[in-house]
Amino acid sequence: MRLILSVLILASPIAALAQTPSAATKPEVVQYHATIDVVKYVYGVAPPVARLRPGNILEANSLDCFGNGIRKPGDTLALAKGDNPLTGPFFIEGAEPGDTLVVHILDLQVDGNQGIGAFAPGFGALNETNYTPMLHTPLPEKIWFYPIDHADNTATFQALDSNYNVKIPLHPFLGCIGVAPTNGEARSSVVPAEFGGNMDAPEVSAGNTLYLPVSVSGALLYFGDGHAAMGDGEIAGTAIEVPMKARLQVDVVKGKRTNWPRFENEKEIMAAGIYRPVDDAVRIAFTELVAWIHADYGLSELDAYELLSKVGKIHLTEMVDPNYVVVASVEKKYLPAKKTSK
Amino acid sequence: MRLILSVLILASPIAALAQTPSAATKPEVVQYHATIDVVKYVYGVAPPVARLRPGNILEANSLDCFGNGIRKPGDTLALAKGDNPLTGPFFIEGAEPGDTLVVHILDLQVDGNQGIGAFAPGFGALNETNYTPMLHTPLPEKIWFYPIDHADNTATFQALDSNYNVKIPLHPFLGCIGVAPTNGEARSSVVPAEFGGNMDAPEVSAGNTLYLPVSVSGALLYFGDGHAAMGDGEIAGTAIEVPMKARLQVDVVKGKRTNWPRFENEKEIMAAGIYRPVDDAVRIAFTELVAWIHADYGLSELDAYELLSKVGKIHLTEMVDPNYVVVASVEKKYLPAKKTSK
Amino acid sequence: MRLILSVLILASPIAALAQTPSAATKPEVVQYHATIDVVKYVYGVAPPVARLRPGNILEANSLDCFGNGIRKPGDTLALAKGDNPLTGPFFIEGAEPGDTLVVHILDLQVDGNQGIGAFAPGFGALNETNYTPMLHTPLPEKIWFYPIDHADNTATFQALDSNYNVKIPLHPFLGCIGVAPTNGEARSSVVPAEFGGNMDAPEVSAGNTLYLPVSVSGALLYFGDGHAAMGDGEIAGTAIEVPMKARLQVDVVKGKRTNWPRFENEKEIMAAGIYRPVDDAVRIAFTELVAWIHADYGLSELDAYELLSKVGKIHLTEMVDPNYVVVASVEKKYLPAKKTSK
Amino acid sequence: MRLILSVLILASPIAALAQTPSAATKPEVVQYHATIDVVKYVYGVAPPVARLRPGNILEANSLDCFGNGIRKPGDTLALAKGDNPLTGPFFIEGAEPGDTLVVHILDLQVDGNQGIGAFAPGFGALNETNYTPMLHTPLPEKIWFYPIDHADNTATFQALDSNYNVKIPLHPFLGCIGVAPTNGEARSSVVPAEFGGNMDAPEVSAGNTLYLPVSVSGALLYFGDGHAAMGDGEIAGTAIEVPMKARLQVDVVKGKRTNWPRFENEKEIMAAGIYRPVDDAVRIAFTELVAWIHADYGLSELDAYELLSKVGKIHLTEMVDPNYVVVASVEKKYLPAKKTSK
Repeated sequence: MRLILSVLILASPIAALAQTPSAATKPEVVQYHATIDVVKYVYGVAPPVARLRPGNILEANSLDCFGNGIRKPGDTLALAKGDNPLTGPFFIEGAEPGDTLVVHILDLQVDGNQGIGAFAPGFGALNETNYTPMLHTPLPEKIWFYPIDHADNTATFQALDSNYNVKIPLHPFLGCIGVAPTNGEARSSVVPAEFGGNMDAPEVSAGNTLYLPVSVSGALLYFGDGHAAMGDGEIAGTAIEVPMKARLQVDVVKGKRTNWPRFENEKEIMAAGIYRPVDDAVRIAFTELVAWIHADYGLSELDAYELLSKVGKIHLTEMVDPNYVVVASVEKKYLPAKKTSK
Repeated sequence: MRLILSVLILASPIAALAQTPSAATKPEVVQYHATIDVVKYVYGVAPPVARLRPGNILEANSLDCFGNGIRKPGDTLALAKGDNPLTGPFFIEGAEPGDTLVVHILDLQVDGNQGIGAFAPGFGALNETNYTPMLHTPLPEKIWFYPIDHADNTATFQALDSNYNVKIPLHPFLGCIGVAPTNGEARSSVVPAEFGGNMDAPEVSAGNTLYLPVSVSGALLYFGDGHAAMGDGEIAGTAIEVPMKARLQVDVVKGKRTNWPRFENEKEIMAAGIYRPVDDAVRIAFTELVAWIHADYGLSELDAYELLSKVGKIHLTEMVDPNYVVVASVEKKYLPAKKTSK
Repeated sequence: MRLILSVLILASPIAALAQTPSAATKPEVVQYHATIDVVKYVYGVAPPVARLRPGNILEANSLDCFGNGIRKPGDTLALAKGDNPLTGPFFIEGAEPGDTLVVHILDLQVDGNQGIGAFAPGFGALNETNYTPMLHTPLPEKIWFYPIDHADNTATFQALDSNYNVKIPLHPFLGCIGVAPTNGEARSSVVPAEFGGNMDAPEVSAGNTLYLPVSVSGALLYFGDGHAAMGDGEIAGTAIEVPMKARLQVDVVKGKRTNWPRFENEKEIMAAGIYRPVDDAVRIAFTELVAWIHADYGLSELDAYELLSKVGKIHLTEMVDPNYVVVASVEKKYLPAKKTSK
Repeated sequence: MRLILSVLILASPIAALAQTPSAATKPEVVQYHATIDVVKYVYGVAPPVARLRPGNILEANSLDCFGNGIRKPGDTLALAKGDNPLTGPFFIEGAEPGDTLVVHILDLQVDGNQGIGAFAPGFGALNETNYTPMLHTPLPEKIWFYPIDHADNTATFQALDSNYNVKIPLHPFLGCIGVAPTNGEARSSVVPAEFGGNMDAPEVSAGNTLYLPVSVSGALLYFGDGHAAMGDGEIAGTAIEVPMKARLQVDVVKGKRTNWPRFENEKEIMAAGIYRPVDDAVRIAFTELVAWIHADYGLSELDAYELLSKVGKIHLTEMVDPNYVVVASVEKKYLPAKKTSK
């Protein structure tokens, strides 16, 4: 049985990185096509649209954050079909509460020839919002369209108030990826939290592995909100919003649970912290990173704290959603050898 | 007269970058040696230790943040001679309130063979502090010593609780650099604020130019708190703390004032935001950057906001001092041509 | 039909206060008894335990926040049966999304002879928590028992580390009261948010009326977490926790929706703001109060802002739950006459 | 010698309350009249305008926060003569660093027949400010005039956008009162911090005693910014701003230092916490209150924490100045007998 095999060879979540469990045989591929009629708007328990076994590769698409409802100049935000429609959920066989879901981001491709940036009143880091309300007249709604050039891998910003334009390199990633939350909660697709969700993290890109806490049988994986490129903080409230084609490989680490989303690649380990204010998101991310280093690499907590004060990195991915997201990271070259599994 | 000349040719603070005012003739060099007996602990009005004219180069040293009082294993923080002793102040001829002081960071060299990292109770991002107090027993004081290898340009972290060590590349910068504040205020050398100060910003490194608001005649420039390397956030409360040799060239932009510290190099413009919580520091930094782009590069404010949401960067330099510091930046390649001076 | 009648006579949510819709005839009373087997731990859509019509009075009990699982010295928090078990949900006939649910708090009685205060590691304003984590050793778990004296209406604090005791007057209120959230969300019973929930607001006491936004058919009212008395901020994480007997009268305001919970009594109008940090909770509460005064009492927004700056009140009810809760209020004597309904 | 006598009889800061040191003999009165020509705008070291001995009573006036520069409808904020002009400093004989300055607020009288409320762009809790900047068009400047009726002890709010007016009871207090800061700092008169300053605390009213940390010889007491009445949070940025006549009695507690301002009256002890966000101000205030109860009333820290969770009070005095101010308090009736002095 694949699942039991993978349990045996995985000592800890991050062990999943080096050897994808099905390296020897060609992994099974599950394909799924999402449309506006079957998307979800909540991370929670819902009937799965497909089932995956550990090691399987999922090939599926996602709609853009407006449900592909905004198409051309003159369209308004009122045409958006919900916020962040989600593809899924996918039931991962063998994933049970207390386990960790592993998602290898194998490939992401912008699914179309145009991206959208929009300024929505009540959303953004430099204007009043639902949670930082003020008495001003709101800033006006505006929409920018970004032609995608697949040949040179860029999107083009065209100013609305002058005739300036500039090319921006693509860095495709999924703004939303998450599982059903703990405690019977169900959370909107605009929310990031312990279960992942709307993290707007460029770390959810090809070459990285994501770890998520499993809280219900089958984990119930959702994703969406593709971004062709984004600045730190996503400060005006949107990235270059695009439909996406995703190729993801899933796995399960049995009996180990991550408290918060984590990322890993060959060079780095990365821990997400998700809350308000940013200060607390930073505290969460770094206590997680200290704990990870202590557990898997053997430094004492205070040595890890000191070392991170010298070589740690902080990435504020977004400061506009209901919770803010920080990813704290350290390069593996600064860490002791990983402890071997027992 | 150099000063008047520079006024004529400088259209805005950032114009100072391209042409250092004394390109034609060899700039005058002023040398100064700081000792523990003449350092200051406050950014404010004090008798200058030397006077510089615009275009002059200052060659001076700074003590480490402990006043060079901690030397060897067994020493304790009680031996520190104040916090962040400052070299200066330097009086800049012609700098008057309403002007901007320009500091080109030409060169920084670690002045010694050892750096120090310390964990001080009541200071740090993951423990209780004076401003985020809690009822726990404080974490214990600890000191790490970092041998500096000038040949391979590294410092070595040696764990205290295991025998692990690792080399860290040097990135020398000044944790403290600032001028006398506005409104007759005088601020401790541990504080960062509008006048600069304890920004702990790796951006204060060779190759970058710093802009500071002039609030008193002569600006009164101070610096200190040399860092050999530091992680984002300086989360445990210290970098690799070192004495430093600095080579700085000063200039003045007459009649233009920056509200907050700004940085610039050939590739980027960078605006600092300094306050608590981090959220507000981010807001300050990005509104400054939007204003800068609007004023000097001609994009409308909303176009600038949108563009930064796609290509802006956020660097949280420290989250441990009385105020927190964020540097928001954008690469010039994404901006229109700079507006020519009138 | 009662419901239609109440629509006709209610000009705005707060009109519900003066005339309970069934003043003329004796209101119908619905009785319900909650036990540990039927409580809920989530505000969301679930089969109702009973149905109420507008004007009905509900008489029901709630378990304490530990599910009545902690009984005597020596018991530990491990005996708690979940956090904040909720009585409900109650389906309110005629309540539809876009309406406002009105809950008159008629009477609350402590249902037992003992209250409990507990210090749980990871919870509290002056110690590390899940969302403000630190590296310290956590404070130890401790439990205080408070004998209730129904005759003199007091609870008695007995110090654990000395032989001091003191009587505290009872002010019974419900720490939890809320409805199903919007957008298909389901939220844990420890969370306060737009839908009410774990507001820990002493304003939920006899004599006050609470307004909540209806997001699903029937509103689905839950309550629990009785408190015999509590300090501002609930800083150590608990009030004097008790089972409660509640007598509540419900009503519905058709076609008007409150964004956030509101309270009212003969003397005051009160708006809740719920988020982190406290700063944003204050902003939410006061923008709501400004809007309320503008809409129902006719002052301009800036006049209302100015007046509140002179006579407004802020009550920080709790600063320990996943969101923080502030109630902003103003006495009606400072307001113009309420606008008459059209 | 008075000073030595007072040292002998004072066991702790709060002992100063019960017996004013000069109860037996009539205290000496020092009178001082402030004008716009001699006010200060910074808390720091400056030549004293008068000297007081412990036990002396100071009778002095203060200008309003606009330097009495705004007089009648049509005047604008541009006529203000600085922000918060301060009367002082007063040198208190015998006060040395490490001591606590005691200020009994004996009497405060509004010095005039009119108060002013103003809405200044860039200042306030519900609009963008220097430290929470946004991209909106700022709210417009507005000024409200409040006639003072000394006979019935009220001020009258007159709406600008409708013809509504209402009387507001006077509660005169000093928005500013403080001493020279530590570490050689000098702080603007708009700032509240450890040294007191612009706390905008209604607790600075007749009948209360204020304790401040002495950081320089003579303490150097300043005051100003009289308020006839104010709402919690001072949310629009002003109270009813008035010139004031103050009657203050000073004393010194030798060899004991308070970290933050504290207040006391016959019924309560109160500790101020001053920082951003409000969350941290609350943490400061309550850790101070826990420490005070532990030191002077003998409860263990955890018992004090628990008790305050049941009976503590929080007053958010202002959320508009560069730092925010919270006063945490508890009624003495809930505390053990005060420990006797040794």
